[in-house]
Order: sequence, then C-alpha cells, then structure tokens
Amino acid sequence: MPHADSALVPETITTKPEFWAHIYSQLDALLDSNQRNWVTNLSNAASLIYNSLLAFPAHFGNGQKAVNWCGAATKPTSNSSPSSRLLLGPFNGKPACQYINTVPGKARGVCADSFLQRRTVVVPDVETYPGHIACDGETRSEVVCPLILSSGEHDGRVLGVLDLDCLAVEGFDDEDKAGLEKIAQLLVKACDW
Amino acid sequence: MPHADSALVPETITTKPEFWAHIYSQLDALLDSNQRNWVTNLSNAASLIYNSLLAFPAHFGNGQKAVNWCGAATKPTSNSSPSSRLLLGPFNGKPACQYINTVPGKARGVCADSFLQRRTVVVPDVETYPGHIACDGETRSEVVCPLILSSGEHDGRVLGVLDLDCLAVEGFDDEDKAGLEKIAQLLVKACDW
Repeated sequence: MPHADSALVPETITTKPEFWAHIYSQLDALLDSNQRNWVTNLSNAASLIYNSLLAFPAHFGNGQKAVNWCGAATKPTSNSSPSSRLLLGPFNGKPACQYINTVPGKARGVCADSFLQRRTVVVPDVETYPGHIACDGETRSEVVCPLILSSGEHDGRVLGVLDLDCLAVEGFDDEDKAGLEKIAQLLVKACDW
Repeated sequence: MPHADSALVPETITTKPEFWAHIYSQLDALLDSNQRNWVTNLSNAASLIYNSLLAFPAHFGNGQKAVNWCGAATKPTSNSSPSSRLLLGPFNGKPACQYINTVPGKARGVCADSFLQRRTVVVPDVETYPGHIACDGETRSEVVCPLILSSGEHDGRVLGVLDLDCLAVEGFDDEDKAGLEKIAQLLVKACDW
C-alpha cells in the first residue's frame, strides 16, 4: 500500500473514539521498529493525523469545521538553542511561530501551558484564552497534548507538545483529548529523543 | 503579521519567476538569524512552499494541477541510522516513505538520483521514470533539488534533498528548478547541520 493511503478514513468510522483508534492503528503500522528517528516519525505522524482529520467530515474536514494545523514543538536536547523555549517541529498546515517561551512566569499561550503543566489543554475558543499566541488568525479552537517520557533514565521529562488547531470554535472535546494522548504515548515510545 | 499569512500570494504575481522570487523573500523574512535549527526551518520552509504553491492557481493549486507534497529527506549526521540512506524530514502532504536507499548501484528513485548525482532532477511523468518509488499513487510529476553545503569544513557535502510532487504531468519546468535551487541555497546557509 502506498504510504499516502494510510490517511484514508473508511466510511464505517463514524464516532470520534472509532476515529482515534483507527489513527492509532494506522500510525502503529507506519512506525518501524528499526527506525526511531524522532524527526521522521513526527513528520509522518503530523501528516497522518492532519490528513485523516480532513478525511473525517463527520466531525472535522468539513469546510468551516476543518482542522487547519497539526504538528509538534519540542525542547532541544543539544546546546544549539536555549533550553527555555520550545522549537517548532514537523507539522502540516501554514507557517507557524518558530519558538515558544517556556520560562515560568513569562511563558504564555496554550502550548507553553500544556508543556509547563504537563497536561492536555483543550481550548474551545482561543479568543477567550489568556495569552493566546495567534500564529494563524483563522484558528478558533485548539488542543495541545504534552509528550512525556514514561521510562528510562529521564522518566517524566516533557519532550514537547502535539498541537491541533481548528477553524471552528469547540472543535475538540474530551474524546479528542483521550485519543491524542494515546497517540502521544505511542510516539514517545517509538522514537529516540 | 501572523506567520500563516506568509503563505499568501498577491494577485499581482502571475509568472513563475515572480512567484519564486516572492517565496524567496517570504522565506528570508521567516528565517531568524538567531535560530538556526534545521528541523524548525525545514518545517516552516516546506509549509511555506507547499501552501504558496496551492495559493498560485495560475500554475499550481488548481484542481488537477495541484501540488500534493513538499518536503525534505536528509542524511543523518549521528550514529542513530545507517549513513547509506536518507531519512524523511519535515513536509506538508500525505504520509511518505521513511527512508531512501542511497547505496550507489542499489539506490533507486528520483530522490536518490538527485542526491547521488548532486543535481536537480525534473521528472515530467513519474510513470516513465526508471525505479520511481510511489509513496502516493496520485503523484504524476516531481522535482527534486539537492541541499549542498557551500562553505565551511564540509564544503560540498550533500545534506539531503527538497522534493515537490504534483498531481499533473509536466507540473514543473526549468523555471521551477531555478527557483527551488535558490530556496535550497538560502535554507542551507540559514541552518546548522
């Protein structure tokens, strides 16, 4: 099967829990245990999630309800960048902010809050969110999930965040939160960081 | 200006040379001399090129002529992967092949040829290209440009490739080749590799 076809969503899938279980299995099949490069795997994951959401018009991808951004921001592990910020990582969607300040007390925005609070943040309306950073003025709602190491020497370290944006208010709910958190766990385990 | 707006293409732009000069200036403005992370910069560059092409219906982005993939594959510099292959990097479009064999004599496909031959390859019809690798069965034409270091200790090293795919045959020509090569030079100089 050509890799692109992994983003097809069968018509039999009608609910969000079914959709996220489908994405999980598609991503699990795309990931290769012999290839643990985080850039490669986040690139394909962002593409898979984004294009699958657009192929699921029951909840997303339908004109004004369309998802308009899906991607990652990560904490650099090298000395090439100050550790006080997240750097933009692989994504699908329009160009975005390159870095996100994560200095407690100075950080602002949904991604910084998710990263610092180590929890998924669902934002029904970005215009009412304190300190929202508008990379795209068309974004109306957002969900951001942290990527957290769950084993090994650095167990508990927050590696970065996964971010989804939607053109409609209330684009995401607790079912999307649960689905995205399982995707994040799969990705963390499949890569070297 | 929100970052997403950098992918807008003014209606005054009607020719390909004007288009590529516009992309160059937009990318130059997006890149930040204080931030030389190649993952971040290739992520925004792939997004900018892809979304700008789709916003340029005079030549692309118009139904059957649409560009359907834009991104990078790079040669890992660490020991985390065999050096005999390119790894998928940041892109916009549907999921793609994770690695490309670059062993001379065994390598196949447009990306491997561009990388090994150190030159841009324009493919008017992928179905007639020997050894074409179909990540997406809908792709009909392609242009691949190498990323080559032009200064410093490793002057001349090929870092990877930039790849554009189109749903139509003969999507790209020598004007696109020239435009993409200038973008590649800008990106190589703007990042630490």
